[in-house]
Amino acid sequence: MYRINTINFQAGLSVDCVIFGFHENQLKVLLMKLKNMEVWGLPGGFVRKDKNVDDEAEAVLEERTGLRDIFLRQFYFFGHLNRNDAQHVQDLIENEVVDPAMEEWFQQRFVSVGYYALVEYSKVQQPIPDDTSAYCSWVPITELPELILDHEYIIKKAHNTLKRELNYQPIGLNLLPELFTMPELQALYETVLQKDLDRRNFRRKMLAYQILVDTNKKRTGVGHKAPILYSFDKLRYFAAMKDGFSSGW
Amino acid sequence: MYRINTINFQAGLSVDCVIFGFHENQLKVLLMKLKNMEVWGLPGGFVRKDKNVDDEAEAVLEERTGLRDIFLRQFYFFGHLNRNDAQHVQDLIENEVVDPAMEEWFQQRFVSVGYYALVEYSKVQQPIPDDTSAYCSWVPITELPELILDHEYIIKKAHNTLKRELNYQPIGLNLLPELFTMPELQALYETVLQKDLDRRNFRRKMLAYQILVDTNKKRTGVGHKAPILYSFDKLRYFAAMKDGFSSGW
Repeated sequence: MYRINTINFQAGLSVDCVIFGFHENQLKVLLMKLKNMEVWGLPGGFVRKDKNVDDEAEAVLEERTGLRDIFLRQFYFFGHLNRNDAQHVQDLIENEVVDPAMEEWFQQRFVSVGYYALVEYSKVQQPIPDDTSAYCSWVPITELPELILDHEYIIKKAHNTLKRELNYQPIGLNLLPELFTMPELQALYETVLQKDLDRRNFRRKMLAYQILVDTNKKRTGVGHKAPILYSFDKLRYFAAMKDGFSSGW
Repeated sequence: MYRINTINFQAGLSVDCVIFGFHENQLKVLLMKLKNMEVWGLPGGFVRKDKNVDDEAEAVLEERTGLRDIFLRQFYFFGHLNRNDAQHVQDLIENEVVDPAMEEWFQQRFVSVGYYALVEYSKVQQPIPDDTSAYCSWVPITELPELILDHEYIIKKAHNTLKRELNYQPIGLNLLPELFTMPELQALYETVLQKDLDRRNFRRKMLAYQILVDTNKKRTGVGHKAPILYSFDKLRYFAAMKDGFSSGW
């Protein structure tokens, strides 16, 4: 059962992490199945009084995935009253997910800072559950199970942020393997954007961004025309993440 | 002296509002001069336990400017430990800005949700100070005075957000008068972006966004060639604010 010494934690504040992975042309999110209950939740946690909030989100990411130094970004602050639910707290206690001594803590009003992360799926085959969860799993965002509180809304908001950000910054690092083909990169964009893109336009636009390196290697064993393998030019990639593509003003 | 009944407020949480206005080709921000102290701060406040955090930010905006239904957006959550400053709290009490009974409340660790707003300068000639401030004033962002805590960082972050968002959404509504010329719109962009833009490219790109309406009127009394007056097509403008310009993917 989950129990912490609440004196060390910031009252009424939590972090929630939407951890995205890309696998078999599906955008997936890491979810935790609660103990003894048929509902799922996002990886998250409370904020120690002596820690920066961003660092607490990083700690959640590392504890659940084992990964460090991963792209992780605040995307929204969830401060609506309707995100709190007294019945949910009762359920957590009755189902022995949370120690009854924690009831008062959980019954406070909570606001939450939302973060999203992009991680390499193949490196997180065995995500690590926390004290409230029986196991965790990668779930396609098109097939979400029943989620606690406003967690479905948090995931939607993270996905919408990602879609919007694609208009001025790249995606792919940590989601694709080190070497990838143009069709593989396009498939990632199509999956995130949930729409088909024209092959030629995609290629033209992507090359114009000047973030790809032609590795002079080809993917073999895929039929007649072996496609070129690219990698990201990391300096240019990170510059674009910071300042946006110069296609702007 | 500032005093609230803290039992009604969410512990350790505040909102800070960066309220932008555009006047005489300068981007200005609304600041409050603290009582009895030579430092300034952003309009902000605490969060009542029974209110949505976004609504509290709206209340701050309305109380300081008298304006309602104004563009106001969360842009960042400030959760770093170094934003708290015990000496600052002492100064507030010694200078009789804050009631000594509030010391314990102010000495807690505070995290803050940052919002920015774009308002019509001419409608806010007389901003309204709060209980901690002697007066308020519009200050060009290039000439900021000494600010409390991390408020200068908050303003920089808001300005950077605005610059980045110009890559995929419009600006101008509430910052420009109802009718404006293309050079006036360009001056706004140049001021926000802090760089010169090519006149022809600006015009071409802006017309392609299809958010402008040619009003068939001209600005008179400005010399030989009277420039066309435009207004925003509000439906298209709001659609672009929501989904971004379709120049994306």
